[in-house]
Order: sequence, then structure tokens, then C-alpha cells
Amino acid sequence: MRIKRIGVVLAGCGVYDGAEIHEATLTLYFLDRAGADIVCTAPDILQHHVINHFTGTETSETRNVLVEASRIARGKITDLSKISANDLDGIILPGGFGAAKNLSTLAFSGSSPIINSDLARLLNDLHSEGKPIGAICISPAVVALALKEKGVLLTIGDDKETAASIEATGNRHQESKYSEIVVDSENKIVSTSAYMCAQSIGEAGVGIEKLVQQVLSWS
Amino acid sequence: MRIKRIGVVLAGCGVYDGAEIHEATLTLYFLDRAGADIVCTAPDILQHHVINHFTGTETSETRNVLVEASRIARGKITDLSKISANDLDGIILPGGFGAAKNLSTLAFSGSSPIINSDLARLLNDLHSEGKPIGAICISPAVVALALKEKGVLLTIGDDKETAASIEATGNRHQESKYSEIVVDSENKIVSTSAYMCAQSIGEAGVGIEKLVQQVLSWS
Repeated sequence: MRIKRIGVVLAGCGVYDGAEIHEATLTLYFLDRAGADIVCTAPDILQHHVINHFTGTETSETRNVLVEASRIARGKITDLSKISANDLDGIILPGGFGAAKNLSTLAFSGSSPIINSDLARLLNDLHSEGKPIGAICISPAVVALALKEKGVLLTIGDDKETAASIEATGNRHQESKYSEIVVDSENKIVSTSAYMCAQSIGEAGVGIEKLVQQVLSWS
Repeated sequence: MRIKRIGVVLAGCGVYDGAEIHEATLTLYFLDRAGADIVCTAPDILQHHVINHFTGTETSETRNVLVEASRIARGKITDLSKISANDLDGIILPGGFGAAKNLSTLAFSGSSPIINSDLARLLNDLHSEGKPIGAICISPAVVALALKEKGVLLTIGDDKETAASIEATGNRHQESKYSEIVVDSENKIVSTSAYMCAQSIGEAGVGIEKLVQQVLSWS
């Protein structure tokens, strides 16, 4: 059987300023168990900021998204600017505030959030080529920013403000529970709310496992 | 059914200078799925050093073990010095170089490695009270340092030097594969090699899932 190459976009390392570690790790786990070839990637840019995850407060440190994401990837990771749609059969974006702070400006007030240009290029190229996209937690709102006015169906669970931000991009939102995935078969896009709704890592894993299976079934 | 409180000792956040993220996260995942109450803990001390996980080189940064471990724990973590055996029904130590650099001095040459005194106290108290200990990857060698001359049976896979370091503490080593656990029923200690032998996160998960089940069955 052909080995499927699935990109995993990491926005750093840690829920408050980077990639949500549990969501990212479980994505890798389910992909690997299914025999996929995992291509971790992250942008070579500075984090928006660094949060002390013990106190919850901002620090004066400076950290790089690619360097910190390498902790989750155990060093096996590629600069996002060097990845093209040809390198992948599909892609998955775990969540965490890094998706809304480093991969985009969604976390900050203002009417016109922007998305990292390399990520926007890659997601548009994959979508154009009919390759699947899986988005977890807050990341569906990032995918919506990339695929403006495409009318794709996404979920971030039941947070009204984030759902509105998706609909403001000319895409559609469907409410869901942590245990569910929302599937847009026409666009080959699947999403799940994970820690937007889940109360524990076990709950987050339920939707992530289904999402990984769906991405692989399309790729 | 009584909820089992299982400690998870985190040595930072990242395979080369802290806790191995995949091993730690999968430990949390299997514990949570089984309904355990997870008590993450780490020492409030500086890391031995900080490794850039993209380049593999040491940086000039300074990071705190408890603060970085909080990334894996999503902020829900307790200073190791404040945890006593009474708080727990069992404990699990994931691996990563942090176990050998921050929780002990095993990574450094010299004939007399030492172990963090709070961790030594906690492991001895748990062992004295007949509460189970699970040790993953390199951590069995840390457990051996705590339980000197107890004759407990441990595995770190098949690395000759690390196995010898265990036997030098007056404990016993048994070779194993990534898919296996080594069980010392008399001492209620279980260990598995994970990334000491595993080539992927899926492989590492096989032994970790068995180890978690064994700890819970004893607790």
C-alpha cells in the first residue's frame, strides 16, 4: 500500500503560546499507528510572546516557533516555507493559542485578522489539488482565514464568537461536541473541537482519532 | 469505584533537555482514558541546560523545570517538594533526557550519579507503602538510584551501559523490546523501554499503554 504523507502544522510548543501539546502529540500518535509518513512543519518566525505556563503570565523571553515546535517533533521538522503541496497527501493543524497568535492574528481584537502567508499558500494549494485538510480546536478558524469565500463547513465546537469569526470569512460553521467531527466531503475538510470543548485529554482524543482517520481515508 | 490518584513526574518539556513529550502525553492519555485522577508534578529547579531541538545545540537560555513541565500539564501541576506519598495511589515517570539531567545526574560521566532528593524521598515512601511505580525509557535508571540495594527488577531495553548503571545500584536489569513491559510484582514496579528502543511514537505507545494498565491494576 502507498504510504500517505501527512503534514502536521505546529505553532510552537504549549497551549498558551504555541501548539497544544496533547492535541499535537495525539495527532502524531494516531497518524503513526495508521502507518502514515508524518511531515511536521512550522514557520521559522518569532512567537508572538512567551507565556509562563505555571503562572499564566507573559514573560520577557523570546522564542522561535520552529525551534519550540521541534520539541514536539523530536527535531524531525521542516520550515513551513520549504513545504509545498506536492510534498503532502494531506495536512492536519492541531490547536493551541499559537494557531491564533503565531499562525494568524485571530487572538487579537480587530476586524481583519491575517494568516501566515506560507500557511495560506499551502492550504490553498492543497485545497485546489483536492487534498484533505484536518483542523483541530481553534485551527478551523485559521483554515477559514486561508480559504476565504469558499463556503467550506467547519466546527470549533460551540463558542459563539469564534463561530462568528468563521462565518465572517465567507465560510460556514456547525456546532459540535468534543466527541464529534464535522465533515465537509465536497471540500475534503474535517474539523473537531478538541480542547475548545473537551474537559480532559481522553475527551480530546476521541475527536482527534476520528479526524485522523477521516483525513487518511481521503488521502 | 474509587478514583485512583496517579502522579506523573515531568522533567521539563522536550526530549533533549526535559521530559519526552510523546511519552509524557501518552501516559496522561492512557491514565485519563482509564478514569484516573492525574497529579502532574515537577521539581521547582533550573534545568541543567536548554537544547535547541531544531539544531540539537545548547543555547545560552535558562529555563525552570516546573515552568516548562507546565506546558505538558496545561498548567495543572504541583511542585514536587509539596507532594507526599499520601497524595498518591501510584506514580509514573516518563523518560527524556530531563530524567537524566534534571531529576538526576545520570547523563554525566562519573561514578556516583545522584538523584533529586524530593524525588528520592517520594519514591522510597511510595515503595515502603506498597504503592506502584511505573518507569518509562531512561527513568528506570532514576528509580534504581532512589531504591538502592533493594534488588528491584527494571528494564531500559537493551542499552548495555545504562543496564550496567542499574546493576551498579544493587538492582537488577532485564533486557526487553519496546513492545514489552518488565514486571516486578513483589515490589510493584513496572518498566518499559519506549524511545530507548522504539522507532516511532506508535511503537513507544505500545509499552506505555501496558505500563499504565499495570500501575492502575496495582493501585
